[in-house]
Amino acid sequence: MIPYFENVPNGEDLKLVHNAIKPYINNTAVLSHPDINAMIGAEVYFKCENFQSIGAFKIRGAAAAALALTEEQRRNGLTTHSSGNHAQAVAKIAQILGVPAYIVMPDNAPAIKRNSTLAMGAKVIDCKATTADREATLEKVVAETGAYFIHPYNDYNVIAGQASAALELLEQVDALDAVFAPIGGGGLMSGTALALKAFSSNTKAIGTEPKEVDDAYRSLKAGYIIENQTTNTIADGLRTTIREKTFGILKDNLDEIYTVSEAEIISAMRIIWEKLKITAEPSCSVPFAALIQQKERFKGQRIGIIITGGNVDLNSLPF
Amino acid sequence: MIPYFENVPNGEDLKLVHNAIKPYINNTAVLSHPDINAMIGAEVYFKCENFQSIGAFKIRGAAAAALALTEEQRRNGLTTHSSGNHAQAVAKIAQILGVPAYIVMPDNAPAIKRNSTLAMGAKVIDCKATTADREATLEKVVAETGAYFIHPYNDYNVIAGQASAALELLEQVDALDAVFAPIGGGGLMSGTALALKAFSSNTKAIGTEPKEVDDAYRSLKAGYIIENQTTNTIADGLRTTIREKTFGILKDNLDEIYTVSEAEIISAMRIIWEKLKITAEPSCSVPFAALIQQKERFKGQRIGIIITGGNVDLNSLPF
Repeated sequence: MIPYFENVPNGEDLKLVHNAIKPYINNTAVLSHPDINAMIGAEVYFKCENFQSIGAFKIRGAAAAALALTEEQRRNGLTTHSSGNHAQAVAKIAQILGVPAYIVMPDNAPAIKRNSTLAMGAKVIDCKATTADREATLEKVVAETGAYFIHPYNDYNVIAGQASAALELLEQVDALDAVFAPIGGGGLMSGTALALKAFSSNTKAIGTEPKEVDDAYRSLKAGYIIENQTTNTIADGLRTTIREKTFGILKDNLDEIYTVSEAEIISAMRIIWEKLKITAEPSCSVPFAALIQQKERFKGQRIGIIITGGNVDLNSLPF
Repeated sequence: MIPYFENVPNGEDLKLVHNAIKPYINNTAVLSHPDINAMIGAEVYFKCENFQSIGAFKIRGAAAAALALTEEQRRNGLTTHSSGNHAQAVAKIAQILGVPAYIVMPDNAPAIKRNSTLAMGAKVIDCKATTADREATLEKVVAETGAYFIHPYNDYNVIAGQASAALELLEQVDALDAVFAPIGGGGLMSGTALALKAFSSNTKAIGTEPKEVDDAYRSLKAGYIIENQTTNTIADGLRTTIREKTFGILKDNLDEIYTVSEAEIISAMRIIWEKLKITAEPSCSVPFAALIQQKERFKGQRIGIIITGGNVDLNSLPF
């Protein structure tokens, strides 16, 4: 059983979580391509979290949080607010554990996301697309059902679960000089940075963000959390803002951070699809876009990139 | 060195070829998905040949043919006629071996295919989109350059190379009841059937074709080769007709053959993209479409499917 972490998890905690969630996750493949390596002038290894059963890494964190609950604590079910991959992750782990899932979702969420969540047996509760209504609706769900709320990222157990992608990558590829990941709420990047510091201290943790939602970049520069002013990016998974737990970890453990334009994101996404032959979300094209932008800085190095998910609507591709 | 095969290669021949081409090919990943298994009522394993560096299995056969040549025989280069993945395969292996490649391509071939071939340093020679002009142009190229012609499939060395995908699959997945592959010219299916008969005789070799270009289906039924009357299928890799070498092997080694409609192909392709998160060509959606159609027949079984390639034009997807 996974303990509930009150503090930043250490290396042993990350290993314990990884072992506990293994039955519920895939140790996903790592892909590379000679044309991409030639283009960047580096060895680039893509950890394909789009190959998780829910199509994204989020199952790692949701499983890590759900498995920290006692039977009693999770008997009434799990709940969260999300219109994206975290919704599917919570629905999936609830289904596996045989408890109800209640997903609070904005009423303008794409039908495809709603349907995948429903298909996993979750109950979807509509809210208005505002923070206030989302939180009020979630509180009401918790009060009425007694379900346990799993935050998408501001939770040390969720962060420890997301760290397992980097732990696997370190086993799959030797001597990485850097690992790039995107920052939305910062759960994956926090877990990645903790994993690298604990088990491969020579590997730099590189955060990446769309310029349009560069709250982590500005917050880390300022020394305090600054909210996003807009959510005007194609990288829909990265529109959220970092919170105190992810901010604290990133402040102490992130080595570098880069931001990229919308055009850079779409261009990187197309290269990933065309060369690696995978469907990757705009969100996880952000780290590759940053590597293209910074290729002189990383020349000759061995680089890991976490492809966070592949849940795209094939009817509305940007190319 | 690989011998030049005058006759149908046996199991030892296939192993020898596989070992010889290993430096030039990827042992590609096998993916599966619980939703697909639930939908079919079987365990389905997809061998992802779209993860070859050229984005398709054809590099296996081209390497196997090129490595059977003496330095003298290949000194003047390699040539073939193809507007598709075989063109890129020949260009790639010529580039690796440091000899010229001359690719005869119809003047209406998509720019994307032409450009990828040119990018590998090959020379592209235009012909009209008729069999007569294609063959005349190829003869002229051979006469002028002395380049060695590698047929896309009617060649026992090419067939032995394509067999290596099934050899790998048998190592990656235990106790398969059947392996499905598409039939265009029949090189991959011939190699697959030979590999199964030699090393896993309980595993059925299942051929699949679009109804619109069902020359193999009709030929095997008739007992002699019947040409396609039209090429009216989205599965552009399967428009070619089987020839005497592939027909002979399929006649003796194929266990079953199924044909699918264009709607079935597109529907299967979408499921592959959405669930497996890979880009797969229409051609390699054909075997999965056949499995969906025949799911009662294969219920509870362990099924391998060869995803032959992922070279699609992202600007003209059928969905």
